Amino acid sequence: MDRYSEIDQRLKNHKEKMDLPLNHLKYLSKADNRLSCFSIKGCGLFYDFSRQRVDSEIIKNLTDLAVQSGLREKFSSMRRGGKLNRTEKRAALHTTMRSNKPLLADDGVLSEIKSVKDEIKVFSEDFRSGKIKGTTGKPIDSIVVVGIGGSLLGTKFVFSALSGLVEKVIDTRFLGGVDIDNLSNILDETDPEKTLWIIISKSFTTVETLSNFNRIDHFLKEKGLLSSDHIVTVSNNPKAEENTLKSFPMLESVGGRYSVTSVVGGLPLSIGLGFDIYSEFLKGASSMDDHAENANEYENLPLVSALISHWNNQYLDYNTVGVIPYSAKLKEIIPHLMQLSMESNGKSVDTEGNKLTARSGTILFGDQGTDAQHSFFQLAHQGQPFPVEFIGVVKPYYEEEHLYRGVTTHQELWANMISQAKALAEGKESDDSYRNFDGNRPSSIILIDSVTPLNIGKLLSFFEAKTVFEAFLLNTNPFDQFGVELGKTNANSIRASIADRNEGKNAEKSDDITEFYLDTLFSGKI
Amino acid sequence: MDRYSEIDQRLKNHKEKMDLPLNHLKYLSKADNRLSCFSIKGCGLFYDFSRQRVDSEIIKNLTDLAVQSGLREKFSSMRRGGKLNRTEKRAALHTTMRSNKPLLADDGVLSEIKSVKDEIKVFSEDFRSGKIKGTTGKPIDSIVVVGIGGSLLGTKFVFSALSGLVEKVIDTRFLGGVDIDNLSNILDETDPEKTLWIIISKSFTTVETLSNFNRIDHFLKEKGLLSSDHIVTVSNNPKAEENTLKSFPMLESVGGRYSVTSVVGGLPLSIGLGFDIYSEFLKGASSMDDHAENANEYENLPLVSALISHWNNQYLDYNTVGVIPYSAKLKEIIPHLMQLSMESNGKSVDTEGNKLTARSGTILFGDQGTDAQHSFFQLAHQGQPFPVEFIGVVKPYYEEEHLYRGVTTHQELWANMISQAKALAEGKESDDSYRNFDGNRPSSIILIDSVTPLNIGKLLSFFEAKTVFEAFLLNTNPFDQFGVELGKTNANSIRASIADRNEGKNAEKSDDITEFYLDTLFSGKI
Repeated sequence: MDRYSEIDQRLKNHKEKMDLPLNHLKYLSKADNRLSCFSIKGCGLFYDFSRQRVDSEIIKNLTDLAVQSGLREKFSSMRRGGKLNRTEKRAALHTTMRSNKPLLADDGVLSEIKSVKDEIKVFSEDFRSGKIKGTTGKPIDSIVVVGIGGSLLGTKFVFSALSGLVEKVIDTRFLGGVDIDNLSNILDETDPEKTLWIIISKSFTTVETLSNFNRIDHFLKEKGLLSSDHIVTVSNNPKAEENTLKSFPMLESVGGRYSVTSVVGGLPLSIGLGFDIYSEFLKGASSMDDHAENANEYENLPLVSALISHWNNQYLDYNTVGVIPYSAKLKEIIPHLMQLSMESNGKSVDTEGNKLTARSGTILFGDQGTDAQHSFFQLAHQGQPFPVEFIGVVKPYYEEEHLYRGVTTHQELWANMISQAKALAEGKESDDSYRNFDGNRPSSIILIDSVTPLNIGKLLSFFEAKTVFEAFLLNTNPFDQFGVELGKTNANSIRASIADRNEGKNAEKSDDITEFYLDTLFSGKI
Repeated sequence: MDRYSEIDQRLKNHKEKMDLPLNHLKYLSKADNRLSCFSIKGCGLFYDFSRQRVDSEIIKNLTDLAVQSGLREKFSSMRRGGKLNRTEKRAALHTTMRSNKPLLADDGVLSEIKSVKDEIKVFSEDFRSGKIKGTTGKPIDSIVVVGIGGSLLGTKFVFSALSGLVEKVIDTRFLGGVDIDNLSNILDETDPEKTLWIIISKSFTTVETLSNFNRIDHFLKEKGLLSSDHIVTVSNNPKAEENTLKSFPMLESVGGRYSVTSVVGGLPLSIGLGFDIYSEFLKGASSMDDHAENANEYENLPLVSALISHWNNQYLDYNTVGVIPYSAKLKEIIPHLMQLSMESNGKSVDTEGNKLTARSGTILFGDQGTDAQHSFFQLAHQGQPFPVEFIGVVKPYYEEEHLYRGVTTHQELWANMISQAKALAEGKESDDSYRNFDGNRPSSIILIDSVTPLNIGKLLSFFEAKTVFEAFLLNTNPFDQFGVELGKTNANSIRASIADRNEGKNAEKSDDITEFYLDTLFSGKI
């Protein structure tokens, strides 16, 4: 038996121990020094796992597992440009977007990153000072970010978190999936003569983004506007340079869901909020990278939170996690984390190509507190149990003198966040079985001091590091996404059939079910 | 062994059978007449469960279970006002909101519903014709719906689905959870002299809603505006009538998450979109209620879809479901269904008060297609499997002549929806293990002809009926929500401690963890 499977066996035994009534969270959470032993403060974040179903021995074993699996070495290698994305034979350079750390093989990457940042700075400052003019000579004053998934969700999160704190905010919209509604809503709300479209696609072959791009281009032509005045692209495909005002290069080695600190987020955030905000945000992300690489296994926030996630999923058998930010400003972190976590860690094979025996990925969902309390928290308290990650902000960015029931709105929010975590953990016995709460439902609380560019950078990088640590524990590759290819391939052939039908050609027959749906689509009714 | 447990045992045996390689969906879905045998068309909806892991025998047994559990009888009793909400000793009268069906014990309910509808009609027509004036004499031209959970989510879904189809739309906003950001964004975007606030809380004790109400009231006073000009309430608490322009009564027997066809949705929808739209929407909901009550067990859409959900959760061991509407107009159905399903069916006891042995509730999450494809569909295809419910719309509400890759935007959307369901079911073998897809991942497709008030009513009622059928199968109560009470109780005591601290009083000490969070909140930093 190797050392790894020894730890695995010990953790399995600990799972059985944790199921004993005496290890109910209502007892564990009240033990002396529970919080100080099971929480970490570092790098501007606080991570409280005192209401997770763990004890010191479990943490000891999980930490051994982290050492054994070389989590920090792998992270360090990643930051130095090691080719951790083995299936795609390349490095994962998202942390390099926010640091000057030398790389093993530079190949001019650092200077390219610097030069792109300089271009972002110049372009965004020109934009914000009104120097960029549209075809009709009017200064452009709004942008639409066109992308999907990783080209959009991270940026949307950061923008919505920070836009309320910035004095001069450029009107910024986001266009994702293909649906005429998404596009036409934006067309209704913007003045085409004064709008710049930022088309983001690493490969510049993403069908959804190119479909939207094509329709935008068509719209501009109809309006007599030039794409060379109203379109900017971000891509690593040279084709994206054609017929645009400007094209920003994107590194091959930065994956979509990790790309918000690259030009993908950098360009829209610098235009929308200012280059200084983007720079501060990068500083925050970089300092959390340093922490993730250097803090020891017991004091490392993203590493310990990855261990807890692994413990919950692989040993306690929770396949799902709820993420509940108690802050409207952080609401958009949910779709970002859904992608980051599930696209990175929902894999079928390990890095050697062996079929995974462990459960793959955690299903992540959520809603903003207090809304979640009036939605799915009934199930969280009395239905099938699942772990919850609360995210809180200590200091509101506003002063409120008016009190209701003796508290400010922000205090009300906190009263709720604290009480939910406590209720989930402790439960409450009642003779009235409808009002009986079993409790023992695990949760964590993550705190930041306040919503600032620096702290949002830290929070983003915290979750990125946590995500890759989880992959390193299972020895899977968090940077590829071959699982999305089959759907794309199928769509290509179905699209071709539809196009043939549009032209009155006899399309090649597919299976019966597909043919039924195509017939239905063309008949226009069920 | 009673008949119920015989069926249960048979279903367990069928589960083992379905795990055999020969019952992989790639074979099942290609069988002759698979789609016609495993799909239902009725009442304007199409429900395709041909890619669920079922065969005729399983459907036969599930249908027996439906008969045995008296699903349709219970539904029928519910519609006649039977006191199915046993714990709260009352009927569940949401279907009565859209029908004139006589009740077992009327108690004036039908005439009350009619008179409230008349009031909604008059008030909304006055509003839409500019007759309602604010304190300063300006006509009011925008509304803000203030509520949380069931007082908001259903209305938000219906409004966002239909608003693009209506010529005259009144500016309508929604204010949910307590967070100063939510309120201040709305205050920034509205003109207080021309805004009406609709405060919705059945009990008029919902802390979040009353906290928002209090702050709105405070804001109006500061602006010199009268709440008796700018506030309307919907409640069944007489206190809600004080100092308002008008108060609409709400029936005790309609639960929040089932209330969108009542005055809760009726008032904002009639103001925002017109009373005719609301009436059409009610007609749709009512016709699906008729279908759910009268269609036999094999042809009953919500009933069969509840059986499939039960089969997936209790026998195939899928505890989660993804809901993916391939239509931007239907995006807001996701938060509505999250509440409807999880708050209704996440229970710990049956209607007799016995502890449930079955798994309680399905975790429901989702995103709009095609966005989901670029987010968590990697996990859907190659990570832990979970069932997916696709929702599609056959006919777009717009004409598009421009083609990209030979197809319209709507056709592109369909190409993707069809291909995803096919890929999940069939998978694809590959020697390259990274590109290997196991398939056998179940999904359904629900279609409506087009987004119209009638069809949205049907869709809403379909999911309501499905939800209660699922509860009837487990003999749980889908109408109460005692699970949210402990969090509220805890919050009351924590709020009191915070209020004491605000006043410099010595607050009663709570547990160490809670005290730490209160100290942190008051110190303003981690």
